[in-house]
Amino acid sequence: MHFQPRVSILQVEEGLELAPKFGPEGLMPCITTDAASGEVLMLGWMNAEALRLTAATGEAHYWSRSRQVPWRKGATSGMVQRVVEMRIDDDQDVVRLRVRVQGLGASCHVGYRSCFYRSVPLGEQAGKALTFTETHKVFEPGEVYGDAPNPTRL
Amino acid sequence: MHFQPRVSILQVEEGLELAPKFGPEGLMPCITTDAASGEVLMLGWMNAEALRLTAATGEAHYWSRSRQVPWRKGATSGMVQRVVEMRIDDDQDVVRLRVRVQGLGASCHVGYRSCFYRSVPLGEQAGKALTFTETHKVFEPGEVYGDAPNPTRL
Repeated sequence: MHFQPRVSILQVEEGLELAPKFGPEGLMPCITTDAASGEVLMLGWMNAEALRLTAATGEAHYWSRSRQVPWRKGATSGMVQRVVEMRIDDDQDVVRLRVRVQGLGASCHVGYRSCFYRSVPLGEQAGKALTFTETHKVFEPGEVYGDAPNPTRL
Repeated sequence: MHFQPRVSILQVEEGLELAPKFGPEGLMPCITTDAASGEVLMLGWMNAEALRLTAATGEAHYWSRSRQVPWRKGATSGMVQRVVEMRIDDDQDVVRLRVRVQGLGASCHVGYRSCFYRSVPLGEQAGKALTFTETHKVFEPGEVYGDAPNPTRL
């Protein structure tokens, strides 16, 4: 699969050619949502290879920034993301996937269904404690990942 | 509004403190969806000030990478994003907003409702032409932005 060179704003914004733009580290953000519920599951990062593999195989591939390796989502956990639809944004530097998550159906390494399980207070409540919006974990990370290092970086 | 220092993975992932992590340019991605339909509207970038202003005012603020200025979304177009809910992800380096878009109700500078108006073919169709998923523009950019420079960069 071949990406086109970026030659004009009209081509990039209104054209039918895939002419993606990767950031300084060769990565672009990917927003992944649940195809059935529309829930935002995670934001991952793709390099050119991950974008090609995702399109070609119909399974979500990312670049793991913490491990610095190509990452077929679900390779360890079995919670593979089958891609129902892929979209590209106006200036072609962000991807969006709608997926069906296999196995236990979670996408967050902490064990929740979505990575976005805490809400941030707004307005007069700004600065107060976060609120959990998911009340239970789908899986226990230790049981799925064993002693693999936690990808979160401080 | 005060951000907490990041002291442990447990605090960042399972705690109730907002301890965000901004990337090398001081920016974190923000996924913005329509509060009613759940549709992904755009991905913007926030610096610390934008995150604080968004939480405090309940209106989406970003950092414009193309103009290199703070950006109150809708300041020019009137299509302000009222924030219904803000969430933070597991390792606190991505924000997600659910918004009600004011005015004409679009969030894409090209004139479409969402920035993700083209789908990318998958599997055996990979590499073929993109498909438009929005068939009409909500507004004509020239009428709204006048001769302001297009933010898309090649």
